[in-house]
Amino acid sequence: MKTIRRQNLLAAALAGALAFTTTIAQAADPLPSWNEGAAKQSVLDFVAKVANQGSPDFVPVAERIAAFDNDGTLWAEQPMYFQLAFALDRVKALAPRHPEWKDKEPFASLLRGDLKGALAGGERALLEIVVATHGGMTTGEFEQTVKDWLATARHPKTNRAYTEMVYQPMLELLAYLRANGFKTYIVSGGGIDFMRVFSERVYGIPPEQVVGSSIKVKFALRDGTPVIVRLPEIDFIDDKAGKPVGIHKFIGRRPVAAFGNSDGDLQMLQWTTAGAGARFGLLVHHTDAEREWAYDRNSSIGRLDKALDEAQAKGWTVVDMRRDWKVVFPFEKP
Amino acid sequence: MKTIRRQNLLAAALAGALAFTTTIAQAADPLPSWNEGAAKQSVLDFVAKVANQGSPDFVPVAERIAAFDNDGTLWAEQPMYFQLAFALDRVKALAPRHPEWKDKEPFASLLRGDLKGALAGGERALLEIVVATHGGMTTGEFEQTVKDWLATARHPKTNRAYTEMVYQPMLELLAYLRANGFKTYIVSGGGIDFMRVFSERVYGIPPEQVVGSSIKVKFALRDGTPVIVRLPEIDFIDDKAGKPVGIHKFIGRRPVAAFGNSDGDLQMLQWTTAGAGARFGLLVHHTDAEREWAYDRNSSIGRLDKALDEAQAKGWTVVDMRRDWKVVFPFEKP
Repeated sequence: MKTIRRQNLLAAALAGALAFTTTIAQAADPLPSWNEGAAKQSVLDFVAKVANQGSPDFVPVAERIAAFDNDGTLWAEQPMYFQLAFALDRVKALAPRHPEWKDKEPFASLLRGDLKGALAGGERALLEIVVATHGGMTTGEFEQTVKDWLATARHPKTNRAYTEMVYQPMLELLAYLRANGFKTYIVSGGGIDFMRVFSERVYGIPPEQVVGSSIKVKFALRDGTPVIVRLPEIDFIDDKAGKPVGIHKFIGRRPVAAFGNSDGDLQMLQWTTAGAGARFGLLVHHTDAEREWAYDRNSSIGRLDKALDEAQAKGWTVVDMRRDWKVVFPFEKP
Repeated sequence: MKTIRRQNLLAAALAGALAFTTTIAQAADPLPSWNEGAAKQSVLDFVAKVANQGSPDFVPVAERIAAFDNDGTLWAEQPMYFQLAFALDRVKALAPRHPEWKDKEPFASLLRGDLKGALAGGERALLEIVVATHGGMTTGEFEQTVKDWLATARHPKTNRAYTEMVYQPMLELLAYLRANGFKTYIVSGGGIDFMRVFSERVYGIPPEQVVGSSIKVKFALRDGTPVIVRLPEIDFIDDKAGKPVGIHKFIGRRPVAAFGNSDGDLQMLQWTTAGAGARFGLLVHHTDAEREWAYDRNSSIGRLDKALDEAQAKGWTVVDMRRDWKVVFPFEKP
């Protein structure tokens, strides 16, 4: 009699606690910075479909892989890719050690403050800048250099740290997917070791879930101490058709959801959404000249043209930043 | 008064449940196939050190990365690497489609059953075999080919499926580390896409935690359907000095523990154990000619020479398979 009573009390207490938790979960909006509308609803519908055991589209937790582009999808990319701003600052910092740069393009133009002239050399000029500023040091030294830069550099328009210029609605989306058993990955044309410095702190994405472009590295013993040295040579470009390649190489299975904002993400969305079962593709359309920037088909940075057409044809979600996002950056929150 | 009593009953019930769980955890040996001794104790001591919050050597869960070699560390590698057996079977299966192989080395020797003659061509011959049997198909087709082979191929000595020839003590070690918050990775000279077919089912290691050697792949649209095609070209060799490179590339942070069995693992153990804080290195020494194989300094497969010397100098654990393992393969279990 006494035993039964104790069990009843325990059961009642547990049931009460469970009911309370469930109420909380239902009441809280997991995407509070998204305005109500088709874009937000498409995310909620997809997650409900794949994460609920009883659903015909149920996807086991192990296969819930979501791939996110970084520049223009998780953080801003105007007026220039943030990593290019890092590279330019490094050119200035390293110039005293490279007197020959005064007469050598693209460095000579850069050091005169003529960015347009420097980049007139096209992809080759850009690669020279990347290789000169990202190679020739150990991985530990590079990590520290990026850390120091992120701590001090400021965005030319907002005067905020670059890591503050992330999209609040996308931070909520990352957290929401993870709360529903997804493993969130970055799959970006940006430098893998550049992003790994801040991805865990800023996005909650650990270094081992970052896929990106890389330069070659080699292992060496220096006075008996093992180091990994960054070489002045490109290893892999994780952009356009390189994105599904990077996904296959690093993740080894096809994501069920992919998120991007430009033609550089087109093949990643094609590869992701062509898999069997429920799939989800989303593009962030930069339509907000006031709170952020407005650009698409004619932009040299983050051009969104072919992918925008294909999104319409294939039913991928297109986020209209101005209309769909209540808040853009975390620092705008009341 | 009534409320207080209810709380007390609840607290007592919960405390009882907790005490019961703790007793279970303490009573069960997490490594039942390991004999008591220095090797087993070193594993238990290391895990206690890094996983207990109060310990001066405590390592946060996010940083608990453990890297395991595969051939000779998680499964056997005699009388030849299992993936080589796969490649040889593929040469036979593909021969009808390649009449030119009858007059072309290393294929001509192979098809006559002369393995030694075929491999006389050294690394170049081996690469030709790998490229001919692993390239020229989509990733989906390759996965299916490996699956079919694993389901039917049998080991020449034990007549068991190759995936049964994994080491029971290492399966327990993998599970024990994961139960203590570790993320377990394979870092192997073997083919990344070959291992990914069985790593989750056999080792509980998902495809995205497998690092290995690779051939190049490219993304393509075939009649509008996205595919990833395997090219007949080596991309990356994840062996020797390539292992720390693979770890840096794929994981992006240094493991705290590494497990290997040959000189091919030396640099991985150097890189892992040179990090700050508590570190753990372990080598499996194949000393059991009866239950498995006995080989080390003079073996062409899995040579263990320099790494054995360095293990003694640096205090890495060396497992004496004959003495330290109660059971070698799961099928031996009573």
